[in-house]
Amino acid sequence: MPTPRRIAVLLFEGVEELDFAGPWEVLSAWAHQWPEDAIEVFTLGLGAGTIRCAKGLRVVADHTRDTAPPFELLVFPGGRGTRPLLEDPELIAWVQQLAGHGVTLASVCTGALVFAKAGLLDGKPATTHHGSLTRLASLGRNIEVRPEARFVDAGAILTAAGVSAGIDLALHLVVRMHSIERAREVRRYIQYDPAPPV
Amino acid sequence: MPTPRRIAVLLFEGVEELDFAGPWEVLSAWAHQWPEDAIEVFTLGLGAGTIRCAKGLRVVADHTRDTAPPFELLVFPGGRGTRPLLEDPELIAWVQQLAGHGVTLASVCTGALVFAKAGLLDGKPATTHHGSLTRLASLGRNIEVRPEARFVDAGAILTAAGVSAGIDLALHLVVRMHSIERAREVRRYIQYDPAPPV
Repeated sequence: MPTPRRIAVLLFEGVEELDFAGPWEVLSAWAHQWPEDAIEVFTLGLGAGTIRCAKGLRVVADHTRDTAPPFELLVFPGGRGTRPLLEDPELIAWVQQLAGHGVTLASVCTGALVFAKAGLLDGKPATTHHGSLTRLASLGRNIEVRPEARFVDAGAILTAAGVSAGIDLALHLVVRMHSIERAREVRRYIQYDPAPPV
Repeated sequence: MPTPRRIAVLLFEGVEELDFAGPWEVLSAWAHQWPEDAIEVFTLGLGAGTIRCAKGLRVVADHTRDTAPPFELLVFPGGRGTRPLLEDPELIAWVQQLAGHGVTLASVCTGALVFAKAGLLDGKPATTHHGSLTRLASLGRNIEVRPEARFVDAGAILTAAGVSAGIDLALHLVVRMHSIERAREVRRYIQYDPAPPV
């Protein structure tokens, strides 16, 4: 077996449920249904123990930063829980360190605010939840905010729009890490033929 | 304050993550962002303690069947964990009892197989994950299987297609329980303007 390529999905107090669960479903369905691709996905908790999400769901992470194996991609969800993270220099330094070590960073929703605060979006195109676009611009220098984008791929850093946009971003990540064909297969597995009734 | 209208989202070993997390996001966003609607959403675990989902996510339910308050709607997700449930007479009897007491039942993905086994889809239109359509038909009598439907509203019982279809179903439930306007507002909150990249 080849060494697995590892993806961490971040969890923290006040994380928005679908922000992480959408990418989790896409990426872990890929890992489970196509084991020959040698993908490993795990949840990475900023704290130990049970984590209370923004809307009240309780989850338990697979790893903390102390126990996590190395990973090449971090999915950083949003939610009201990102607000205290913006004021946490240790957390911001950790994100900067990951970027410095070549880890690909992919945010959903207001996860992008943390990337902006870390200076990682300066001079780059990016997006976030429709309610936080102005905030995003204010946290960095010359961030080229794209209000209409479903997600923005700026190479080593990717940002998605609000909540449900993480599903589209994650399918794009499967394309980047493997192929259009595999991403189509994953899409079919999760029967993602959206038809909003309103 | 009026008495809340309560919605239970079922969790069990092997539940598919997005099957429950999609409706959970839609319905609990509604409950949290519009408290004047007096909606309460909680997770209902078939077992106590930490529940391991189909792709490995660990969650902790708010209630078991012993502690849950009365509810008017049950969201029944799918996943490989539905297979043992089909062979569990006590669980099947509980679902029949809920239907008999006027609780609305809404399945996502292979959750519909449990409804079929309980005889609740006999003679009714229904759908499920694209890989389980034949199985669905075989579990009941004269189930009118609708392979192309995103979800089917048969009145007291609703069924959705695979995994991601639960998001569309849940928005329809907001329409049914409140209004098209509110469902549109929830849709905007979760920024559900899907744009699959593949």
